[in-house]
Amino acid sequence: MSNYNEKLKNISSKNKSNLVIGLDTDLSKLPTFILRFNHPVSEFNKLIIESTKNIVVGYKLNVAFYECLGEEGIKGIRDAMNIIPADMLKICDAKRGDIDTSAEMYARTYFDIYNFDSITLSPYMGEDAVRPFLERENKLVYILALTSNSGHKDFQKLKVGDKYLYEEIIRKSLLWEKDNNIGFVFGANHTNEIKLFTAFNPQNSLLIPGIGAQANDLKELMNSLKSSDNYVINSSRAIIYSAKKDSNEKEFTDAVRESAVKLNQEINSLK
Amino acid sequence: MSNYNEKLKNISSKNKSNLVIGLDTDLSKLPTFILRFNHPVSEFNKLIIESTKNIVVGYKLNVAFYECLGEEGIKGIRDAMNIIPADMLKICDAKRGDIDTSAEMYARTYFDIYNFDSITLSPYMGEDAVRPFLERENKLVYILALTSNSGHKDFQKLKVGDKYLYEEIIRKSLLWEKDNNIGFVFGANHTNEIKLFTAFNPQNSLLIPGIGAQANDLKELMNSLKSSDNYVINSSRAIIYSAKKDSNEKEFTDAVRESAVKLNQEINSLK
Repeated sequence: MSNYNEKLKNISSKNKSNLVIGLDTDLSKLPTFILRFNHPVSEFNKLIIESTKNIVVGYKLNVAFYECLGEEGIKGIRDAMNIIPADMLKICDAKRGDIDTSAEMYARTYFDIYNFDSITLSPYMGEDAVRPFLERENKLVYILALTSNSGHKDFQKLKVGDKYLYEEIIRKSLLWEKDNNIGFVFGANHTNEIKLFTAFNPQNSLLIPGIGAQANDLKELMNSLKSSDNYVINSSRAIIYSAKKDSNEKEFTDAVRESAVKLNQEINSLK
Repeated sequence: MSNYNEKLKNISSKNKSNLVIGLDTDLSKLPTFILRFNHPVSEFNKLIIESTKNIVVGYKLNVAFYECLGEEGIKGIRDAMNIIPADMLKICDAKRGDIDTSAEMYARTYFDIYNFDSITLSPYMGEDAVRPFLERENKLVYILALTSNSGHKDFQKLKVGDKYLYEEIIRKSLLWEKDNNIGFVFGANHTNEIKLFTAFNPQNSLLIPGIGAQANDLKELMNSLKSSDNYVINSSRAIIYSAKKDSNEKEFTDAVRESAVKLNQEINSLK
């Protein structure tokens, strides 16, 4: 078992949770009171992290939301990394995939410099686009398998021989694994496929987005996860934007905390 | 014809070139004299752009090399964007691919904020990961088809019915096109496939990396391009690192200019 999987196991048991909060921090959606701070993105994330760190297993930063902000976005990533407690998961949602020299640069950026624990990667360019990430100790790579968006139908479910493309990607990428350091992204809507995957690969970590704003059936999802305890369920917008725009700090952190507690309890009640 | 394709046509005819220089600017490889500047990355790019802007059609920035540098990398992108002449192509090599809201953020970042003319995208997540980019006027998207790295064999050439996966990606993504604003990335090593593609799609722009450091046969490549004039050939390391580490400014810009002139002449002689 790699240290990433152990880390997930420990924090999951400590916080009684498999929930991750997605910090898809969008300036245009922040409560008004936060815009008065010098660094609203960092402040917003700080308030969320501080009010939920006993409820969830970690945080996922989709870097699209940070790149858009230039220097302020870099500060946003760095500040979040400094605030997230050391025993919690720091997941980078970057969906990168590039040839060896560029992949090495991305691995350096997100694993060595920012110190994320795991990263999402796109499989299209094959092994050498993933390799530099696998060579880092105590890290994990989440390869996109079957994503939650409508576009998953375009290519991921094409038939390759008697398999779907995403199944062939799983089969082949597991050959690259070293010390159980590959996981996969499955959208919460793909419950049949999650069930099938976990029946054969209960040891591989799953990152499951699509609960919350994307409104998929949590009960069905939890049924599909009966064979595994190595998974994280991500919710972003439904938690981080649960307060009204004109809320004050207390109303904001209460709303965020409450929605995280509620979703976590729902998940736990269905385990 | 979209304005991107017109822009390529115009600059190609003005500079008698289809060559693009890849600004894969890596601090560890810069000549020593450049490290004395306050912003060595920006200075390095400036010297390259100024000494080659009459020889090539544009510049490709692989953002992996800039993300690695934090705030300084953002300045590097911004400075390069300000220096590249307005009639030249500014190509963002980002290989992004994410669900709709994140894709919108990436499109905003690279098209609206940095003002790149085109961007490379990974097709794995399907239409909604590409759509926001296609909706911008006068821009072009280069979708990864058959890449130059060894990992292209892992998935891109899987058989999907009677086609290869990359062929099905081309077929389907061309259905999303609006005003000829989709192009494709083919590695320079895939000359048979380039020949086949251009025979049927001479109007779609090609971005061809893999000439130079990756050392593929230029003669064969140029033969495969006889049906098209809508392509750019990228060379990065073989041009930008052509000077010795201990060169002075004049030796550096001379070497860069000479290697660009030489490659461009070779390309032109084989057209």
